[in-house]
Amino acid sequence: MKFPISTIAQLIGATIEGNANAEIFTLSKIEEGKPGGICFLANPKYTHHIYSTQASAVIVANDFVATEPILATLLRVENPYNAFTFLLQKAQEMMQVKTGIEQPCFISPTAKIGENVYIGAFAYIGHYAEIGNGTKIYPHTYIGDNAKIGENTTLHANVSVYMGCEIGHNCLIHAGVVVGSDGFGHAPQNDGTYAKIPQIGNVVIENHVEIGANTTIDRGTMGSTRICDGVKLDNLIQVAHNVVIGKNTVIAAQTGISGSTKIGESCMIGGQVGFVGHINITNGVKIGAQSGVSKDIRIEKSAWRGSPVQEYRQQLKSEAIFRQLEELSKKVHELEKMMKG
Amino acid sequence: MKFPISTIAQLIGATIEGNANAEIFTLSKIEEGKPGGICFLANPKYTHHIYSTQASAVIVANDFVATEPILATLLRVENPYNAFTFLLQKAQEMMQVKTGIEQPCFISPTAKIGENVYIGAFAYIGHYAEIGNGTKIYPHTYIGDNAKIGENTTLHANVSVYMGCEIGHNCLIHAGVVVGSDGFGHAPQNDGTYAKIPQIGNVVIENHVEIGANTTIDRGTMGSTRICDGVKLDNLIQVAHNVVIGKNTVIAAQTGISGSTKIGESCMIGGQVGFVGHINITNGVKIGAQSGVSKDIRIEKSAWRGSPVQEYRQQLKSEAIFRQLEELSKKVHELEKMMKG
Amino acid sequence: MKFPISTIAQLIGATIEGNANAEIFTLSKIEEGKPGGICFLANPKYTHHIYSTQASAVIVANDFVATEPILATLLRVENPYNAFTFLLQKAQEMMQVKTGIEQPCFISPTAKIGENVYIGAFAYIGHYAEIGNGTKIYPHTYIGDNAKIGENTTLHANVSVYMGCEIGHNCLIHAGVVVGSDGFGHAPQNDGTYAKIPQIGNVVIENHVEIGANTTIDRGTMGSTRICDGVKLDNLIQVAHNVVIGKNTVIAAQTGISGSTKIGESCMIGGQVGFVGHINITNGVKIGAQSGVSKDIRIEKSAWRGSPVQEYRQQLKSEAIFRQLEELSKKVHELEKMMKG
Repeated sequence: MKFPISTIAQLIGATIEGNANAEIFTLSKIEEGKPGGICFLANPKYTHHIYSTQASAVIVANDFVATEPILATLLRVENPYNAFTFLLQKAQEMMQVKTGIEQPCFISPTAKIGENVYIGAFAYIGHYAEIGNGTKIYPHTYIGDNAKIGENTTLHANVSVYMGCEIGHNCLIHAGVVVGSDGFGHAPQNDGTYAKIPQIGNVVIENHVEIGANTTIDRGTMGSTRICDGVKLDNLIQVAHNVVIGKNTVIAAQTGISGSTKIGESCMIGGQVGFVGHINITNGVKIGAQSGVSKDIRIEKSAWRGSPVQEYRQQLKSEAIFRQLEELSKKVHELEKMMKG
Repeated sequence: MKFPISTIAQLIGATIEGNANAEIFTLSKIEEGKPGGICFLANPKYTHHIYSTQASAVIVANDFVATEPILATLLRVENPYNAFTFLLQKAQEMMQVKTGIEQPCFISPTAKIGENVYIGAFAYIGHYAEIGNGTKIYPHTYIGDNAKIGENTTLHANVSVYMGCEIGHNCLIHAGVVVGSDGFGHAPQNDGTYAKIPQIGNVVIENHVEIGANTTIDRGTMGSTRICDGVKLDNLIQVAHNVVIGKNTVIAAQTGISGSTKIGESCMIGGQVGFVGHINITNGVKIGAQSGVSKDIRIEKSAWRGSPVQEYRQQLKSEAIFRQLEELSKKVHELEKMMKG
Repeated sequence: MKFPISTIAQLIGATIEGNANAEIFTLSKIEEGKPGGICFLANPKYTHHIYSTQASAVIVANDFVATEPILATLLRVENPYNAFTFLLQKAQEMMQVKTGIEQPCFISPTAKIGENVYIGAFAYIGHYAEIGNGTKIYPHTYIGDNAKIGENTTLHANVSVYMGCEIGHNCLIHAGVVVGSDGFGHAPQNDGTYAKIPQIGNVVIENHVEIGANTTIDRGTMGSTRICDGVKLDNLIQVAHNVVIGKNTVIAAQTGISGSTKIGESCMIGGQVGFVGHINITNGVKIGAQSGVSKDIRIEKSAWRGSPVQEYRQQLKSEAIFRQLEELSKKVHELEKMMKG
């Protein structure tokens, strides 16, 4: 979609300096501006870019004073950053206008479907499943029997929600996510085989949760695996059975959390971290990327790193010496020679 | 589904103490019991929970003697653990009663479909593919041409089985699993590009195998990538071309196995482990989480840990000293000063 | 499919020694030959296998001289390796003959579909999407609105391409891949929650790119996440928003690249590597498996390893001493005693 600069100026309450008719179809950073693009200038560090940017329009502060000629149209506002963020949000909304029910799709006659939903072609809504008002189910997404999806939640394409799982309001579930696969539980038998431990719990995802592409969340063995309000999970994360992730915790890609581990609220977990099972991590904890967490962490707002983890600064010291281990080893050998020789 | 306690008592041959009419709809641990739930008491360590549990019913041993009042109905049996496991299995079976062929689905006229199958809406069964008796193919699952699925096997939603791959009997394949994608083989050319090495083999998954959500198993370059009887793979595991995983080996989430590596029988592999290609791991080997295995392991039942791995206890010692490397380094510097100063 | 040996001999211009009528239906290595299979002998190290192979036919050099009886039919050519590679490619081509449009599928009336395409049942082609000539879209694959797929590209089953993303010519995208999910961007708010940073960019995949199963590539926050010509990505890789991967770089499975990191041309990255965000890796760099890269790498063709990475050989030395840390520590304690005692 394209809009004349005049339309955008109206949206953000800007005064226009330059060509008001040029058409805008994308947003960008000032240093990456291209014709048809709009960008903003807030940080004086970037001011020099405004004289060379290819962007068609730049949002600037009311008090901005140019010291060289500028090709782009200027849009003057009180707060350029806020105005640009507003445009970004509008652009994001325009990308999500899907509505209605495409055919063919499969909706069980016993399913409850809210109002103003989008259900894409080839979506599958199982028996007694519930889809809340304003929710969007993209093509090829599977909602198992008795599963419940709240209001204003989006499930992108090729998502699988197993039977009986629950997803709340205002959630965003990316393509390929699996919610409710069996926990990994197998009891060793005398003949060397394993007997499957039944996995009859479910997954409960609360509200305002975002789950990244191809992340997997296993159902509880009994009870629920629970992702609390406001949690943000990146792509390709593994969440095992009966894990609880506390409110507003964010976890980067490819991290894995083993069964029954509880992570507190407002934690920040890096990518490719591993947690063993049955441990407790308190609130506000930070874990560096690629760490291995094998025991409880009880100190709020503490920072950890390494595999196995130790306190963050201690780990950095150990790592620094590790890089010079050859030198340390040589010194010890020298000392040995001096002592014994 | 709900059942009166009396029905459950009949199922497990229990004598009832208390209200036989209360309705049960879920199973739980005794410490997490809620109204409508049934739990069990076997381990004396948990006995105190029976006096406070909210569960509607508790399965106890015939010889259990209460020392305080209990609100829950008691179901007395010889072996509470076995009785509860039996109920768990019944509950699991009730979750898997899907049968019949939903429409629309795509079944090639040349495919062979067994009896008592479930084929969900939007499932795709390719030319000359075979689906055994009692097998369940969930919605959005793709079975390529000439692929063969055995009897009483379940493929959950959004699984992709490439052409010519084979899955045996009594297997459980979770959502998003990919079976038979191309091995990662590319021959460097003089101009810096890579030429694709054709990948014409297949994947053979034997019987009683469970594969976790979004795990990927590449086809052999030539011949087969093979997952042997009784193997259990967790979620998000990568199995490269021509890998062989021996009978009854279990592997935790996010582990990756590079091309042509052979893993023996009855091994236990932790999560996020990496194996380089073209190595052999003998039977009964245990590998700790986040390890990196870069060479053959020839000692049966040996345990390993670290990246690169070393023998388990040796690695623990190295890790312990690593955590105190700063101290060690200081001592060396002190000694140096004393010697030289 | 089966072919008599005589047909295969014609294809590769071979002279036949032995039974020309036996039927061939598979290719294999000489040490794994089975009846109905054809293999080749080029490396003298493998010559002894030719006297015991079960294969029905072996491609040998014109000047090969047998010293014992051989059961297999011999096919004599100038260059056995090239002849075999040619057969492998033919076999691969025969596996990819899908064409036509299967029903039911969903093709928006505003989509542009090229000639000689394959569109599988349950494929979804969104509004204004473009599919180039000769391209194959397998079942359950989702092409969002305004997405563009070039010519002679294959997308296997259950792939999700979000709106506005672009994939070039001659690409191969394996099952379960996600292209264009939102970048992981969340701005912390005063109340502890996070506000979503809109992700309005896209993903651009250039030509001759291969992407492994269940790999995820996030869209740019603004601008594009870019996978350049000739890049080969293995399975389960995470590529974050605004990452750029340079021409002809190959990356092994389960590696993760954080936001805005740029990787140069012709790099070779091992499996399970992690890159932090906003760093630059120059051309021709090699990174060992399970490494953690947390800073710019500016030396072309340099090799690195470890977490955090150090120069390859230096890291190997540190690792070697790490394995003997216990011994080193004991020596230091001994020296201490000698000095102080």
